[in-house]
Amino acid sequence: MSVTAPKGFTAAGIAAGIKDSGGLDLALVVNNGPRLAAAGVFTTNRVKAAPVLWSEQVVKGGRISAVVLNSGGANACTGPKGFQDAHATAEKAAEVLQGHSAGEIAVASTGLIGITLPMDKLLPGIEKAATELSAHGGEKAAIAIKTTDTVHKTAVAGGEGWTVGGMAKGAGMLAPGLATMLVVLTTDADVEADVLDKALRDATRVTFDRVDSDGCMSTNDTVLLLASGASEVTPGYDEFAAAVRTVCDDLARQLIGDAEGASKDIRIEVVNAATEDDAVEVGRSIARNNLLKCAIHGEDPNWGRVLSAIGTTKAAFDPDKLNVAINGVWVCKNGSVGDDRDLVDMRYREVRITADLAAGSESAVIWANDLTADYVHENSAYSS
Amino acid sequence: MSVTAPKGFTAAGIAAGIKDSGGLDLALVVNNGPRLAAAGVFTTNRVKAAPVLWSEQVVKGGRISAVVLNSGGANACTGPKGFQDAHATAEKAAEVLQGHSAGEIAVASTGLIGITLPMDKLLPGIEKAATELSAHGGEKAAIAIKTTDTVHKTAVAGGEGWTVGGMAKGAGMLAPGLATMLVVLTTDADVEADVLDKALRDATRVTFDRVDSDGCMSTNDTVLLLASGASEVTPGYDEFAAAVRTVCDDLARQLIGDAEGASKDIRIEVVNAATEDDAVEVGRSIARNNLLKCAIHGEDPNWGRVLSAIGTTKAAFDPDKLNVAINGVWVCKNGSVGDDRDLVDMRYREVRITADLAAGSESAVIWANDLTADYVHENSAYSS
Repeated sequence: MSVTAPKGFTAAGIAAGIKDSGGLDLALVVNNGPRLAAAGVFTTNRVKAAPVLWSEQVVKGGRISAVVLNSGGANACTGPKGFQDAHATAEKAAEVLQGHSAGEIAVASTGLIGITLPMDKLLPGIEKAATELSAHGGEKAAIAIKTTDTVHKTAVAGGEGWTVGGMAKGAGMLAPGLATMLVVLTTDADVEADVLDKALRDATRVTFDRVDSDGCMSTNDTVLLLASGASEVTPGYDEFAAAVRTVCDDLARQLIGDAEGASKDIRIEVVNAATEDDAVEVGRSIARNNLLKCAIHGEDPNWGRVLSAIGTTKAAFDPDKLNVAINGVWVCKNGSVGDDRDLVDMRYREVRITADLAAGSESAVIWANDLTADYVHENSAYSS
Repeated sequence: MSVTAPKGFTAAGIAAGIKDSGGLDLALVVNNGPRLAAAGVFTTNRVKAAPVLWSEQVVKGGRISAVVLNSGGANACTGPKGFQDAHATAEKAAEVLQGHSAGEIAVASTGLIGITLPMDKLLPGIEKAATELSAHGGEKAAIAIKTTDTVHKTAVAGGEGWTVGGMAKGAGMLAPGLATMLVVLTTDADVEADVLDKALRDATRVTFDRVDSDGCMSTNDTVLLLASGASEVTPGYDEFAAAVRTVCDDLARQLIGDAEGASKDIRIEVVNAATEDDAVEVGRSIARNNLLKCAIHGEDPNWGRVLSAIGTTKAAFDPDKLNVAINGVWVCKNGSVGDDRDLVDMRYREVRITADLAAGSESAVIWANDLTADYVHENSAYSS
């Protein structure tokens, strides 16, 4: 279902020849209205890919009529030529789709950094994609944005008479602000751009921004939310925001579940923090501790590495009051040895770490992955 | 030569039975004076091991007459019992050495977190070590503090009539503030505690604090500098500080060269930064980027990952003016593709990355390691 689950959207995914493999590598998502409201959030990396710089401009207008996405090349660190290519991509889509303005067409790219896009393949690909646009094209579009993803990721939620759909790609370089990923969300709810913006930021703050697969932040992260208004329903804000958050949460969980080389999905919940910021800081510090990530891979409930990670933060806590549970067993109590670590069963893919700061009542959940030899292999041979 | 290179020091390294392997696991270093001046720097991790809490107190007095170090157990996250054990260790050494006060005896431990020390083995070990104290014992002391280190680490420097010697252990969990390590430095220079303190801080700031093997900060880091005054020479500050720095630099380089599972030593030099802090922040961000560390392991001059890491910092720079060289080849110029990446020869263990921020004239060097399957294997099976 993906981005074509809501009414008013068509999509396509085709092979433009950008990927050497010949696989699907170009996606087109079109908002057929009647409304063209849109919002977007982008990587906070200060080294931003050309399509991010382009699409940030587009989103400022609050309207997106179409999105062109390609895998097989990130168009990042490609200088003025890269920006010209992003612009030319939008111009080509405007021309092919007719009645569209390039200034309302967002572009997104994913793949290797530092390589210019093969425009001789990409531009004809847009023509081809336009001919294949369909209200059932969401699935193929989701497949066309995959890079090292082993599965395509889609999700749907909604209310009475209206729907939110989405697709995501991402399988590594996943870290806060945002994860390394491209996400397109669509809805047929009749919602204005400023409401979309608020709902999107409220959702990404507690979903994609709390995914930390490998601590590495991308140059290309893009999350777009497009509204067609085709349902002619304007849901209440809370209901709408909840649906957007549900789709984001679902997609974020799928990203973690498909992270490069990972064998474990680690749910880190920090509880009893003085502030939510403290909880997030501690959660991220645990999520990024390579030694802990290795221990989890080895199914070793090494709580000492959790405490060591907590100790590097500025969060409020007393080292002698820290408690840590792994898969429900409180292996660390009051900063020291707790229940028998041999009670911890770590055979399953999902591992739950609970860090109790005993300093307040705030909490946060961060999702991470273990560190494996497969991660090393996949990322040491990636560009060669 | 190690810690017994300077006059006035004796040392020993013995097998107390703390390590199951039966290897050397207890070191004793004694300052025989006439001066007992000392300084120390410790981990900035807020979760500090018991011996760190103990030795911080000792160092405040500006005098250390002996140091007891053990491998085979970190005595971290061991609660009140752990502190009692650190105290009992100092008391035992004071008793055995005669004429010493426990309040002037530092202790240091390394090994697994969350396990109390086998005091029934450690205390008799101190008696045994005292009988083996020798002016040639520095080498064995250096061996006795090894954990996963494949080699023991010692260094010597000095001036006319005076010497600085040192030993270090550390092979993982190496990250700023400080690296995970135990270091004892000795000198026969006749220098007061406040001068030792300044020289030690000046040295560690630009040596051990700029080693970032795996981004993980230990609970046990301890660097001690003891002066015996036995040379009866008081060198000028600059000359003395330079010798201390030389020994620290030498030991820091040895730590990186022996990091767990590493196949590359990565020298990251950030140049033309607006401030030294900017240079250090950027260097550390590059040093901690797992994707880049994997690429270096794969001998892939993936400069996009360097830019991606720089982009996550708050340092002053313009993305379109960044330059990156790998082993002397400027593969990234003005934020985009530079010289042919195929020119980069990465066959050797040392890899040099130069990041030019084009924002000022400050610089800093950070040392890191690559990320390998061996690192994962060693650290996923460590405590089991």
